[in-house]
Amino acid sequence: MTEAIAFLQPNAAILARRKEIIADLAELVPAERLVHEPVELVPFETDGFLAYRRRPLAVVLPETTAQVAAVMKYCHRYGIPVVPRGAGTSLSGGAIPQEDAVVLGLSAMSRILDIDYANRCATVQAGVTNLSISDAVGVDGFFYAPDPSSQLACTIGGNIAMNSGGAHCLKYGVTTNNLLGVKMVLVDGTVIELGGKALDAAGYDLLGLVCGSEGQLGIVTEATVRLLAKPEGARPVLFGFDSAEAAGSCVADVIGAGIVPVAIEFMDKPAIGICEAFAKAGYPLDVEALLIIEVEGSEAEMDAMLADICDIARKHGVKTVRESQSATEAALIWKGRKSAFGATGRIADYICMDGTVPLSQLADVLRKTSEITDRYGLRVANVFHAGDGNMHPLILYNINDPEDAARAEAAGMEILKLCVDAGGCLTGEHGVGIEKRDLMRHQYAEADLAQQMAARAAFDPTWILNPSKVFPLEGRG
Amino acid sequence: MTEAIAFLQPNAAILARRKEIIADLAELVPAERLVHEPVELVPFETDGFLAYRRRPLAVVLPETTAQVAAVMKYCHRYGIPVVPRGAGTSLSGGAIPQEDAVVLGLSAMSRILDIDYANRCATVQAGVTNLSISDAVGVDGFFYAPDPSSQLACTIGGNIAMNSGGAHCLKYGVTTNNLLGVKMVLVDGTVIELGGKALDAAGYDLLGLVCGSEGQLGIVTEATVRLLAKPEGARPVLFGFDSAEAAGSCVADVIGAGIVPVAIEFMDKPAIGICEAFAKAGYPLDVEALLIIEVEGSEAEMDAMLADICDIARKHGVKTVRESQSATEAALIWKGRKSAFGATGRIADYICMDGTVPLSQLADVLRKTSEITDRYGLRVANVFHAGDGNMHPLILYNINDPEDAARAEAAGMEILKLCVDAGGCLTGEHGVGIEKRDLMRHQYAEADLAQQMAARAAFDPTWILNPSKVFPLEGRG
Repeated sequence: MTEAIAFLQPNAAILARRKEIIADLAELVPAERLVHEPVELVPFETDGFLAYRRRPLAVVLPETTAQVAAVMKYCHRYGIPVVPRGAGTSLSGGAIPQEDAVVLGLSAMSRILDIDYANRCATVQAGVTNLSISDAVGVDGFFYAPDPSSQLACTIGGNIAMNSGGAHCLKYGVTTNNLLGVKMVLVDGTVIELGGKALDAAGYDLLGLVCGSEGQLGIVTEATVRLLAKPEGARPVLFGFDSAEAAGSCVADVIGAGIVPVAIEFMDKPAIGICEAFAKAGYPLDVEALLIIEVEGSEAEMDAMLADICDIARKHGVKTVRESQSATEAALIWKGRKSAFGATGRIADYICMDGTVPLSQLADVLRKTSEITDRYGLRVANVFHAGDGNMHPLILYNINDPEDAARAEAAGMEILKLCVDAGGCLTGEHGVGIEKRDLMRHQYAEADLAQQMAARAAFDPTWILNPSKVFPLEGRG
Repeated sequence: MTEAIAFLQPNAAILARRKEIIADLAELVPAERLVHEPVELVPFETDGFLAYRRRPLAVVLPETTAQVAAVMKYCHRYGIPVVPRGAGTSLSGGAIPQEDAVVLGLSAMSRILDIDYANRCATVQAGVTNLSISDAVGVDGFFYAPDPSSQLACTIGGNIAMNSGGAHCLKYGVTTNNLLGVKMVLVDGTVIELGGKALDAAGYDLLGLVCGSEGQLGIVTEATVRLLAKPEGARPVLFGFDSAEAAGSCVADVIGAGIVPVAIEFMDKPAIGICEAFAKAGYPLDVEALLIIEVEGSEAEMDAMLADICDIARKHGVKTVRESQSATEAALIWKGRKSAFGATGRIADYICMDGTVPLSQLADVLRKTSEITDRYGLRVANVFHAGDGNMHPLILYNINDPEDAARAEAAGMEILKLCVDAGGCLTGEHGVGIEKRDLMRHQYAEADLAQQMAARAAFDPTWILNPSKVFPLEGRG
């Protein structure tokens, strides 16, 4: 396909020095942690945003913060772009490299360093996978809350870069709400620490700024995250509706009533069909829209909250209410939801949008999304975090048909603009990356963008860190 | 008293132009919103950190964002320092002016602009008081969570500047966890908007950076804050212990067990006596330390959580457990706690420290705090947010005795260093201000401070906004 998104022109002087650079990097990391043979570089050419790919100059996979610092110091001295990478699961192309860049992968730094229940936190290396934190503390009754669908693979470092969310973030917040501190290597190799085990930090909240900065302010090598106690019980309940509008209005009324379940997930009819075929979760197939609402706590607490939710759902003409009857059923319900992207990938190529909207706009934006994809002659499946207003239209297309791909990309951009115009935002949890970079001007006025870039320049004035991402290529400060 | 904390030398050229500047400001705000007569400037000379005061050049109290922008544009052009001010309740001297500065007070911007239950948020002007937000939505069953003791007076703008907390922030988080968006005037008068009603925002989290930046990055004129539904019920319970260590260990074990009550407040024997004399709240006088633990929810939920807490308290030899038996009793319990500073002020002058420590260090730091004040021959009362590890030793002294005042200040600095050395932080919710500015080097390495100042420079490169605060005067970038 022709590429709608431009990459920066590679620096010819850096490309010409490739061999020398690789020899220098070999002094900084162990031999087995330096990847430079073309065939071995292929896996690092792209990430979860498969439509674009570039082969990097080299990949380093350091084992220590000191090695990360040495690589940054070297690359900074010679002006070599650095693209940080966790597990490469980014859906917005946040880890896609460029030809003149060194990919700095954190996957070899995957140790849990400290579990501290007295302060309800764990300190881990940046390459630890999201799920392995919960796995390590589950036996003691604790868990780490943010739960991206890719949690089996994605790393905490990548989660911090993208401020990742997940189905259960309605109640527990996203990464920034569960991150207490980081160790970070600055662009010139200086190591700093932000935050820690105690509440707050004196001075500015640089930790908050770093969370969600998509690898452009420094390389996080360690993180201290909040642990939470597991609830007494949890129960996902299925609510089927005759229209997406009714389901959307129901969500707005639940939240508007001040009720905060752990999760409110939405699926439209196409998504229900796709996920049910894959997971056999018992989703009703005779409805137009499905909400998975999970409550937790004691049996009495769950009953009380569900009664309130059912009252509201009835006002919106709910057709089916089905409670999970066992842990197995509950697990199947979540398996269906969390495998939505994978299950969709079995039937078609897709791009996944990630716009957010105020809840009062949910029903209206869903309707207009259908109008847009109808106009382009494309199929869409909607499966998303409705309680947070975080929409994920999956636009189905054929990656091998350039015209179809171009239509899908154009429809996606229209949908994101629709979200912004409804008072929402380009991205809820997947990040801007390379995918939405050029839409930042639709979201922000010049003054807003200029201030964000000024903040960036306070960390990386020469645009070495992940430079193709987040900000439009034109008009950079 | 001699002043231990240095102020910046006033700019003589600005002082010489005072009359001209006042005439110029008169063009930018209505006549009644410009204060410049010496006697009228007295109330603006200091804030809740009474030991220091300076008379500002003038005070402006704009009524609109446009007026704020006009004042900032003017002051920026002529390099005139600007000190933002909410209600002037800062305990760290965050709003204390300097002789060559214009105080920019937000108190005239006190309107609630929008209440939006469907998106569970309210948009207010920066000069709105904290409590008036909850008052406005209470009738509909909602509230705004952060609740500083000064909530009757303090403004949301000041809360944002200091990232204020309060007794109930254990469960609900501090200001940054409840802030969705702001309208902000940059140093040159440009108006930007950060965040909004939808989840997250594309690009960097400048909102997170601004929250807690103590008026140094811009002037917030409007804020959109999260509203929460009031719980079904709430019940504060008193737990008396024979030693501060036992109470501190009990707190660490409650939190370590993953139990999150709404509030865990701590009072030592001196604080209990002071507060009981003032509020007649029924605090037990025969114990060495008191915890006020508040649970909320349905009766069954409260009973269940209390049972778990009582089990832990018994392991630490709790001596008294007393549940409030009525709404009146509950209100008295909180009146006693929230008036602790005022009640202390009736018997002596005091300075209030604000260090945080990891919970596992609580008992140890309490013991060492007593050793420090004993060594200085000073009395101390401890009353603080124990669940958050946010300590507030009140050091009693005589403000009219310079030697006593110097001793109190020296003891306070030792206590804050103790918190930092225990893995904590200089400030939990009161901010660095002018008070703790010179201790920032104890908290941070040079590289950390340099990075914070670089972020500051991205907003205010010439140090016009609240320049005497947060960062040590020497070694500024």
